[in-house]
Amino acid sequence: MLASSVHYFSAAEFVDEALDRLIPAADVEPKRLHEAMRWSTFAGGKRFRPMLVFASGKLFGIKIPRLLNTAAAVEMMHTFSLIHDDLPAMDNDELRRGKPTCHIKFDEATAILAGDGLQTLAFKAISDDELLDASMRLRLVSELAAATGTPTGMVAGQQLDIEAEGREVDDMGLEAIHRAKTGALIRFSAIAGAIIGSADEAEFAAIERFADRLGLLFQITDDVLDATKSSEVLGKTAGKDAAMAKATYVSIHGVEEGKRIAEQTFNDARDAIASLGSRADDLVEIARMTLLRSS
Amino acid sequence: MLASSVHYFSAAEFVDEALDRLIPAADVEPKRLHEAMRWSTFAGGKRFRPMLVFASGKLFGIKIPRLLNTAAAVEMMHTFSLIHDDLPAMDNDELRRGKPTCHIKFDEATAILAGDGLQTLAFKAISDDELLDASMRLRLVSELAAATGTPTGMVAGQQLDIEAEGREVDDMGLEAIHRAKTGALIRFSAIAGAIIGSADEAEFAAIERFADRLGLLFQITDDVLDATKSSEVLGKTAGKDAAMAKATYVSIHGVEEGKRIAEQTFNDARDAIASLGSRADDLVEIARMTLLRSS
Repeated sequence: MLASSVHYFSAAEFVDEALDRLIPAADVEPKRLHEAMRWSTFAGGKRFRPMLVFASGKLFGIKIPRLLNTAAAVEMMHTFSLIHDDLPAMDNDELRRGKPTCHIKFDEATAILAGDGLQTLAFKAISDDELLDASMRLRLVSELAAATGTPTGMVAGQQLDIEAEGREVDDMGLEAIHRAKTGALIRFSAIAGAIIGSADEAEFAAIERFADRLGLLFQITDDVLDATKSSEVLGKTAGKDAAMAKATYVSIHGVEEGKRIAEQTFNDARDAIASLGSRADDLVEIARMTLLRSS
Repeated sequence: MLASSVHYFSAAEFVDEALDRLIPAADVEPKRLHEAMRWSTFAGGKRFRPMLVFASGKLFGIKIPRLLNTAAAVEMMHTFSLIHDDLPAMDNDELRRGKPTCHIKFDEATAILAGDGLQTLAFKAISDDELLDASMRLRLVSELAAATGTPTGMVAGQQLDIEAEGREVDDMGLEAIHRAKTGALIRFSAIAGAIIGSADEAEFAAIERFADRLGLLFQITDDVLDATKSSEVLGKTAGKDAAMAKATYVSIHGVEEGKRIAEQTFNDARDAIASLGSRADDLVEIARMTLLRSS
């Protein structure tokens, strides 16, 4: 457990170094744009998705250097989505990870362009990654695009989420929103290591099932935290879901049942990769950290 | 000239068919998002960049099918930039090609996401193009990312353009803005055919020089049109540059000198590809159409 924590800590540092290498420096023109991209990228994110790329790659014996651009790419894509989701026209959030959001710190035009530029850089980081062969890079670009865009990815999920505000949404509708909005990029992070590791069909299918459950678990625990924790602990505006009349697992099932569904979903995730044995321990650990997270 | 026009007309139809195939249908959820993406994509654009892809590919004997996804990708990337540039936080334009802009027809959140989704789809269209070999597709993705993002692409150019509003900008500053904002994607369109056509080094360099001049020509004629034509003819708000105190070739040099610079730039573009002989006639024709365009 300790060794595992040390491993994760050092991996996060690798990711930060890669992001620093991939995003233009703050003294390169247009400086304000690059400052904004860096502001949001280095705002204290947990690097959850990069950790997932590392853990799934490790399962196939892949070392960090060959996973690094992909891990940084998925973090840039995630950051792009946060910047745009926080905009006044979307969720209108002024606080993220305890700091002013990008459009508050800079301005709306710069925030829109910072998000746009991070999406572009994510694709560039993978296409330029000379440690991976061409067909592997192409598959990663294509899968990342499917996880990011529409109709199956993050952009579609955000649209569905906005449209659902103030409307009745059932369990099925909620799962469809989150599968696209957060699930797709989590799935990509988990399968990226399998792609780079040349997983066989059975291994790939097991990791896909795991990733599907992990994405759901992530969202349920997010909803429970929003309903139960203070803004200070979360580093973002708490209680926002209820205030915006958003459908969540908590609004549909209540906090206690939400926690029970989370436990069950963790078990399902763990069972999905049981066939991979101890090689998948890091993935199970990530799912457990997700279940037990407090922010 | 007639044969040439017929060729272009039919090529535009091919592009529209490809765009229709690549963008999710309007009856696929989230419908409003796909309607918005289609609204802006099929708003009567001239398909200038796809034509350029076709003309440069034709120079190397490449037929339209192998150029089609790349041509559609560059048009989606262009449309993404128009949608975001028109937003209230940016240029705040309500009219584009004579129709309401995306955020006016739909809403701001949908317009932001429609732009985001078109950027994603552009990369996906190239990475999934099975008619091109893997290394070719990767090079196209990487070059398209460089032309789109920052610090060398469209996103950087839009940031520089916004920051220049109301400030003194000289010829050098103006060229830097436009080289990134419009020049980079025009350059990509011209070199895409050379990449797919496996151009040799000298051919590639000639096309790059041509593309550089064509991008400049495009911007100068845009500035002259903005200063001299009515909104009705342009299909967008005319006189906007002066109203927003934007630096343009016309604000720096005046209309007559702007037209003279345009002529000279056309000559430079034509000379840049003179070594390619009659194979490059379609490229020269596109430059001439750009010089003589009335909208």
